[in-house]
Amino acid sequence: MAPQKIGADAALKQVTGWSKLEGGRDAITRTLKFADFNTAFGFMSRVALKAETMNHHPEWFNVYNKVEIVLTTHDCDGVSALDVEMARFINEAASA
Amino acid sequence: MAPQKIGADAALKQVTGWSKLEGGRDAITRTLKFADFNTAFGFMSRVALKAETMNHHPEWFNVYNKVEIVLTTHDCDGVSALDVEMARFINEAASA
Amino acid sequence: MAPQKIGADAALKQVTGWSKLEGGRDAITRTLKFADFNTAFGFMSRVALKAETMNHHPEWFNVYNKVEIVLTTHDCDGVSALDVEMARFINEAASA
Amino acid sequence: MAPQKIGADAALKQVTGWSKLEGGRDAITRTLKFADFNTAFGFMSRVALKAETMNHHPEWFNVYNKVEIVLTTHDCDGVSALDVEMARFINEAASA
Repeated sequence: MAPQKIGADAALKQVTGWSKLEGGRDAITRTLKFADFNTAFGFMSRVALKAETMNHHPEWFNVYNKVEIVLTTHDCDGVSALDVEMARFINEAASA
Repeated sequence: MAPQKIGADAALKQVTGWSKLEGGRDAITRTLKFADFNTAFGFMSRVALKAETMNHHPEWFNVYNKVEIVLTTHDCDGVSALDVEMARFINEAASA
Repeated sequence: MAPQKIGADAALKQVTGWSKLEGGRDAITRTLKFADFNTAFGFMSRVALKAETMNHHPEWFNVYNKVEIVLTTHDCDGVSALDVEMARFINEAASA
Repeated sequence: MAPQKIGADAALKQVTGWSKLEGGRDAITRTLKFADFNTAFGFMSRVALKAETMNHHPEWFNVYNKVEIVLTTHDCDGVSALDVEMARFINEAASA
C-alpha cells in the first residue's frame, strides 16, 4: 500500500527545525552544519542506514561540513508519515 | 602553498567522463548511476575517505542510486591538480 | 517466526569461499583481503547497509585491508538461510 | 621517521577509559557499547575517516552495538603518541 500524502504543512507541525521547500514540490527541507566533514559524514552514514531500513531515501547535498536535506515521498507525490519519521531521526542524529 | 589553478579545460584533457560545470564557476562535474542505494553509498564512503586523506572535499548530491559530483578548489578559485586526482579516484571507485 | 537452523554444512553447499568456524559454535566464516583500507571500509559500509535491511548483523574483525567475518543466527542458535543470503551478498560485494 | 614507542602504561596516563591489552603485545584496548547498530556504525565511520587521515588504523571487532578496539603502532612495535591521539578521538566520538 502506498503511503498517504499528508502534505508539508501537516508534517511541519510534527517536527521542529524543518521548513517547506520552495519552488512547487510538496517537500520539507533542513540544512545542517557540523563541526567538520568527519562529523558530517558520520551523520550521513547513520541516515543512510536508517534510509535503507525504511526503504525511504533522502535527496541530499553535502559540501564539507554542510548537509542540505530534502524529504518527500515519490509514491504519493508529496510529504507522508515516512518523511516525518525520517525528519525526526535526522534531528536526533544531528544533535547526537 | 595554495594549489595552482589549471582550469577546467586542462583538467578535462586528463580525465574521461567529466565535463565543464555550466553557470560560470570554474569546476568539473560528473553524474554517476549505480545499481541501487547500497552500491551508491558504498562508493560515497570510499570517496569520503579519500577526500579526508587529501583534505579536499567534493560538492555532491545524492538521491537513491544517483550521485552528482562537482569538483573545484576553493583555495585557487578554480580547478587544480587536486581535482584531477580526485576525479581519477572517483572514476576508479565507480567502476569497481 | 524465528529463522530455521539449517547448519553450517548445509549452508556451505550453497555459497563458495566460506568455511566452518572452528571451536564449537555452528557458524560460517570467511576472511577477505582488499587492496587497502579505503576499499575494505567501502565494502564494510555496503555490508552494514545490507545488515540493517535484513536486521541480521555479522560478527566481524578488521585491521587495515583485512576483514574476518563470522555469520550465525542467534535466534536459532546456528546457521540459517539468513546467513546464506548474507554470505552471498558479501561474496558479490567483495568481488565488485 | 617512525613514531616513538611510549608504551601502554604511559599512554594510559593520558587517556581515560582504556586499559592494557592482556596477552603480551604492548597495546591498549577499549570496548564500547552503543544504543544499536546504527549508532555503532556511525561511530565506526567517523573512526575510519580519522584513521585514514592519520594513516593509523585500529584493530577492531564489531557485533551489533558492541565495538572492541585495540590500538598499537606496528612501526615501533608498541604504543605510541599516535595511539593516544586515536584513543582521544575515539573517546570524543563515542560520547557524541
